[in-house]
Amino acid sequence: MTPPVCVLGLGLIGGSVLRAATVAGWSGWGWNRSPVTAPGFDVSTDLASVLRRAADEDALVVLAVPMTALDGVLRAVAEHAPGCALTDVVSVKAPVAEVVARRGLGARFVGGHPMAGTSASGWDAGSAALFAGAAWVVAADDGLDPHVWRRVAALALACGAHVVPAAATEHDAAVARISHLPHLLAAVLASVGADGGALALGLGAGSFRDGTRVAGTRPELTRAMLEANGPALREALDDALGRLGVARGALTSTGSVAVTVDDGHAARRLFDGQLTYDIIGVELSDLRGLRAAGRAGGVLRSLG
Amino acid sequence: MTPPVCVLGLGLIGGSVLRAATVAGWSGWGWNRSPVTAPGFDVSTDLASVLRRAADEDALVVLAVPMTALDGVLRAVAEHAPGCALTDVVSVKAPVAEVVARRGLGARFVGGHPMAGTSASGWDAGSAALFAGAAWVVAADDGLDPHVWRRVAALALACGAHVVPAAATEHDAAVARISHLPHLLAAVLASVGADGGALALGLGAGSFRDGTRVAGTRPELTRAMLEANGPALREALDDALGRLGVARGALTSTGSVAVTVDDGHAARRLFDGQLTYDIIGVELSDLRGLRAAGRAGGVLRSLG
Repeated sequence: MTPPVCVLGLGLIGGSVLRAATVAGWSGWGWNRSPVTAPGFDVSTDLASVLRRAADEDALVVLAVPMTALDGVLRAVAEHAPGCALTDVVSVKAPVAEVVARRGLGARFVGGHPMAGTSASGWDAGSAALFAGAAWVVAADDGLDPHVWRRVAALALACGAHVVPAAATEHDAAVARISHLPHLLAAVLASVGADGGALALGLGAGSFRDGTRVAGTRPELTRAMLEANGPALREALDDALGRLGVARGALTSTGSVAVTVDDGHAARRLFDGQLTYDIIGVELSDLRGLRAAGRAGGVLRSLG
Repeated sequence: MTPPVCVLGLGLIGGSVLRAATVAGWSGWGWNRSPVTAPGFDVSTDLASVLRRAADEDALVVLAVPMTALDGVLRAVAEHAPGCALTDVVSVKAPVAEVVARRGLGARFVGGHPMAGTSASGWDAGSAALFAGAAWVVAADDGLDPHVWRRVAALALACGAHVVPAAATEHDAAVARISHLPHLLAAVLASVGADGGALALGLGAGSFRDGTRVAGTRPELTRAMLEANGPALREALDDALGRLGVARGALTSTGSVAVTVDDGHAARRLFDGQLTYDIIGVELSDLRGLRAAGRAGGVLRSLG
């Protein structure tokens, strides 16, 4: 019998976790700050009672609120369900782990991050299928509780995702490169296009449309995501600035952008052709081994 | 009776021009360096005879070969059809105009640039509908022949595009911002992602996929396009570098990316909501007036 899941925050991601876990046969319930209409689901706006039930039924508590609301929710967890297994789906892993530790809840916490779309928002935008085929990072830092780790990984698998084990800081560095930097570049590209006036915007077609798409995301969501990962984003940005400097120098001296274009093309082919492999022969308690496997492209599709 | 069109180079763009003009009721024929199988179309690999026919029938000659092949084709035009009205569909406008002028063909030349996709290539990838609803820039620099201008604009309209009048250098500056810079940023983003190793690439989802899509274009095509527009691209790149520098400084000092994200969001909304307006009351011989209208978002949907 799988123990239940208790989801705190029923927006796009939290609402989809509750749906997907339910479809997979888990029992579960949820809390949201404002009332949501979710026929067939057990949801409430009473945080204390939701957490007391979690403590009674040994639920896995899933933090699915925005970073800015996290500490308030954790205070309630510490009061009403301090012994529960705890995870989150709030993007950056190191900052979340710090806030959790400050509330004294670190011992039973294993962070997570499903790599699924976030441009829509709210319960109504959610879906039980949101995580199908997606990567779901589960933090694999030394000292985490292996029993909680297994439960978090099981939730990710139940939701249809595959598990990518990674150290919190490695996760944050990776998403800075493949999610936060793209948002920053999209914003800058949109502005440079608009600086060209009506003529330039009127000529914008496929490459401009694709390159600026995520600049259409609600700015407060983008800001919250990027600013929570400042140091890692700055490192990715410096890598980009270095490469753009090389391109500028080459344009100025030889007029060629061969290195930039060829490297970028090879990288995109690598992305298109990448293969994940199943992690085999690593004990789930061997977090160091799991981290190393995740770093090399390994994923878990079952808990064996 | 519309005079015919003679298309030199039957790749994606040239082949689509010949098809679209034919569908619109124009007569026309084409030349290609290598043989193409184009049932129902009058195509040849004999450049001299194709051009002599253009001279005999007063055709509008359309240059649709890559930049690197342009001068060789122009030498033949100068020999066999020096009096023909001449246009091109080869992206950057100022460099093409220079090569044309060096061959002594500037007096009857009015450059053009249909803003339509170029990731596929070859006659088979073409379509009569390629230009439907697209912008087609027609160069509107002082001193151009207004009779040729009208014929080039008529071809663009016959192909289903709307005409955007612009000075050659203004066109080149605009496409640097909305086409060439996006290709450069996509290449750099792909490389920065790949620098993050298998873990980062494995976590790449929508924003990374969209932001790097055009890095998948054949590198020699991207290079040719970017390198032909070096000075304008460098200017757009410097604009981007300045904005990225602001973002980096803000991340370092206050930790906020509000300016970057908010500006980018506003720019993308401008792009999504942009309105073109029909140019009314400007004589087609008033190239200065046409340029000014194009700069402000004006387009021609008919020749009145």
